[in-house]
Amino acid sequence: MDHTGKVPIIAFVGIGMIAGSLAKALKKADFVGRVIAYDNSKTALEMAVSEDVIDEAVGFSDIERADIIILATPVQAFYQIINDLARLNLKENVIITDVGSTKGSVIKAFEQAFGNVPDYFIPAHPIAGREKSGVLAAQEDLFKNKRVILTTSHNMNDRALGVISKMWLATGALISYMSVAEHDEILGATSHLPHVLAYLLVDMLDQDLHNDEIFDYAAGGFRDFTRIASSSPVMWRDICMNNVEVIQKLLETYRTRITQFEKLLMNYSGDEIEKIFARAKMARDEHYQKEANL
Amino acid sequence: MDHTGKVPIIAFVGIGMIAGSLAKALKKADFVGRVIAYDNSKTALEMAVSEDVIDEAVGFSDIERADIIILATPVQAFYQIINDLARLNLKENVIITDVGSTKGSVIKAFEQAFGNVPDYFIPAHPIAGREKSGVLAAQEDLFKNKRVILTTSHNMNDRALGVISKMWLATGALISYMSVAEHDEILGATSHLPHVLAYLLVDMLDQDLHNDEIFDYAAGGFRDFTRIASSSPVMWRDICMNNVEVIQKLLETYRTRITQFEKLLMNYSGDEIEKIFARAKMARDEHYQKEANL
Repeated sequence: MDHTGKVPIIAFVGIGMIAGSLAKALKKADFVGRVIAYDNSKTALEMAVSEDVIDEAVGFSDIERADIIILATPVQAFYQIINDLARLNLKENVIITDVGSTKGSVIKAFEQAFGNVPDYFIPAHPIAGREKSGVLAAQEDLFKNKRVILTTSHNMNDRALGVISKMWLATGALISYMSVAEHDEILGATSHLPHVLAYLLVDMLDQDLHNDEIFDYAAGGFRDFTRIASSSPVMWRDICMNNVEVIQKLLETYRTRITQFEKLLMNYSGDEIEKIFARAKMARDEHYQKEANL
Repeated sequence: MDHTGKVPIIAFVGIGMIAGSLAKALKKADFVGRVIAYDNSKTALEMAVSEDVIDEAVGFSDIERADIIILATPVQAFYQIINDLARLNLKENVIITDVGSTKGSVIKAFEQAFGNVPDYFIPAHPIAGREKSGVLAAQEDLFKNKRVILTTSHNMNDRALGVISKMWLATGALISYMSVAEHDEILGATSHLPHVLAYLLVDMLDQDLHNDEIFDYAAGGFRDFTRIASSSPVMWRDICMNNVEVIQKLLETYRTRITQFEKLLMNYSGDEIEKIFARAKMARDEHYQKEANL
């Protein structure tokens, strides 16, 4: 940080909804002096500048001027970007972080490009997705009271971890620290699995049932249940590709659950079915009650 | 209808959220003179009276005074109620209808109790469920621009069908007419299946993953996806028990879809995965765009 207590320059690689929201939040909190960004979409950069989300659109190599570099493209693009990053003349005290939804793969990308994971790379995952994407959907309060997970390792640079922690605190987020494996399992279960299930359901109804009107009879419950199936197909393809083993195992477990339920159904085991439904309702209600009391 | 154009007396059997909302809507539309109700919960009846949702709480046998009798208990209770109905001294021009989520079973119950389905019974299903239940959650505009399905048959009494159609039009609902089988298939796909899937997912995360904090890392997408898992376990047990064959077949098809997806995942078939996600997103977005333009 400079004498004003601000980080002089933060650079975003990729300026979509999450990066835009983070840029807005950090400016509002006076955490940063100047926000620059590179994106392979010129339109995205122009919108980011004209909406005052960033101060300057730059070429890729200009991000070496930054004190903090934040990788915020779809995760699939990380391999190439991290390769390119390795060839830049980065600042001595640079800190790199990301906002990707999977963590195992970004670690691998650094290992390949840098030979090892630099101790100044702090993997981060803000859990604040929305279906809307693009910089115009950015909101400065997006992270307030939302979880952000920093995946930690023993050889991590203390100062880098401290700065990135402070950065997220400045957005109002609630920080959790955990291992990469734990992160990918928890997110696989609470985020990747539900997205896959929602996409598969909508596609099944659309493709199998040959009824153009089928969705007309869907109530509010269906609308909510399938909302995540309106998320970005490319982003979710990438997330799936980067957490294959965990998601496959979860899908297999879920299939087993369905098979068990089918048996209960065909045996008219109403009591057992009610027990499952009641247990699920209680688990969900308890959690959101707890959250409401935060 | 009497000389004022109103139906003199409507009786509800069961006075929860749906019945309460219908009572309120029909009073507001001046469709009904007097609303009476029977419920096996005294508390529900007292609340309905004190909230002015109904004019009078009555004993079961008093519903024979009504011109329209609306069955609005959980569907599992229909068998007993329809049996009891058959022993009442109903008005000559009485019309019976219901608001149940499954239709095959109510038809069967009438066949058993009455020997056949009376031509003055008009099965109806307003598609306006919410997680909230109970008469205090009733809203007079609940059915406005919502679908209501009347399942029709050849021998149906024209006047009865006309009156029940008018009744739903008075609430602002959009009426669709279809066969019982078509109803149970469409609702199985758009409502029963998603509810089962949401319950099973929450229960799996709660039971299998042994992580008390798992839900803390769930984002808004998970909250929406699982909202229907906070619905009434008894009501959804009953719905499942009353549409067993359709739901089982849908679950089987869905399981096949998951298995196919797992293969794509393990083969890292990103293009195929993106295709499925994009097709689903397009189907969903197109529908809700159409709905927004209504």
